[in-house]
Amino acid sequence: MCEIKKSTLGRLPAYLEFLYGIKDKRETISTSAIADALSFGSVQVKKDLSSVCNKGKPKIGYKTAELIEDIEKTIKDVNSGIVLVGVGKIGEAILNYGGFNKFGLKISAAFDSDPNKIGRSENDIIISDVADLQNYCESNKVTIGIIAVPKADAQAVCDSLISGGVKAIWNFAPTILKTNDDINVMQEDLALSLAYLNLKTR
Amino acid sequence: MCEIKKSTLGRLPAYLEFLYGIKDKRETISTSAIADALSFGSVQVKKDLSSVCNKGKPKIGYKTAELIEDIEKTIKDVNSGIVLVGVGKIGEAILNYGGFNKFGLKISAAFDSDPNKIGRSENDIIISDVADLQNYCESNKVTIGIIAVPKADAQAVCDSLISGGVKAIWNFAPTILKTNDDINVMQEDLALSLAYLNLKTR
Repeated sequence: MCEIKKSTLGRLPAYLEFLYGIKDKRETISTSAIADALSFGSVQVKKDLSSVCNKGKPKIGYKTAELIEDIEKTIKDVNSGIVLVGVGKIGEAILNYGGFNKFGLKISAAFDSDPNKIGRSENDIIISDVADLQNYCESNKVTIGIIAVPKADAQAVCDSLISGGVKAIWNFAPTILKTNDDINVMQEDLALSLAYLNLKTR
Repeated sequence: MCEIKKSTLGRLPAYLEFLYGIKDKRETISTSAIADALSFGSVQVKKDLSSVCNKGKPKIGYKTAELIEDIEKTIKDVNSGIVLVGVGKIGEAILNYGGFNKFGLKISAAFDSDPNKIGRSENDIIISDVADLQNYCESNKVTIGIIAVPKADAQAVCDSLISGGVKAIWNFAPTILKTNDDINVMQEDLALSLAYLNLKTR
């Protein structure tokens, strides 16, 4: 499942939205018609769709229903449990972020160590005690953990997540985490992103 | 100034911290000594430093003071004005983010359209009326605008920023902005990042 590029993945929701709109009107659809409708390049559309669905036919294109099904499988058939640890400013922003839904993603639980936050709810997600993190991950087959705690706590949280069976970590704490090679760590460094934009602009 | 890679830029603060620690003790420093101290690969260190400072000499290395000065120039000599527009959850998280300082970056002003927010202060930055955005950017030679407003308002904000002379935009709104080619737009799509991590983990 790793062969889909991030840029392709980013366009899949747009294809899906377009296909939903035409599915009752057109049984088949060509890549060039899709490219025209979305103002994408037709080579790009061809590449994108062939990486998701290999049933396209020359001159005919794709069966609309089949293509929808295959794109949905790629972006919506998601069983991953996702948890967030650390409900500070960044954690709150993530819990309230409206965009995850377009990829069928949902954060199922949030954790913090602050007694004033535990038991509160944020965007309908109840905040639990971080002491229960590992147990929760084990019981609920969580695969992704989002770390939004202060730097000093990040490694301990990471260790709990991994002990609980988590396979991938999205780290917003400004620190490099130590993990085994089989854990997928994505480091989010807002400062580096801004610094890079700044450097390119000078 | 565009030739420095993002990955190199990300390591510069670590070099700087190490060099500050040894600058009174060692007049020159070799790339291999730096690599050892930081547990980086020595080829990587060599490449990183030569992209910042071209005064390294074979067998001797760099003059410590010179190297510090050149790294500082790269990451700290920043005159860019940076403004944030939209003080919702994401905007608040950005205003309170502690990491920008390591690259010498500082957000100088924040804007919102909500009368309940205008005049309030967040992390010592006073929130101004978005109606004054363009004027502020012009008067203060702002070069980077961070957009953290809802999708529906993002293009109008983008247009004001560009009219005010802004050259680069960091967009957190989940929408593609229309700009001229000379404007540097960095799209931040949290949903896409999480979806990609999820896809790689399946």
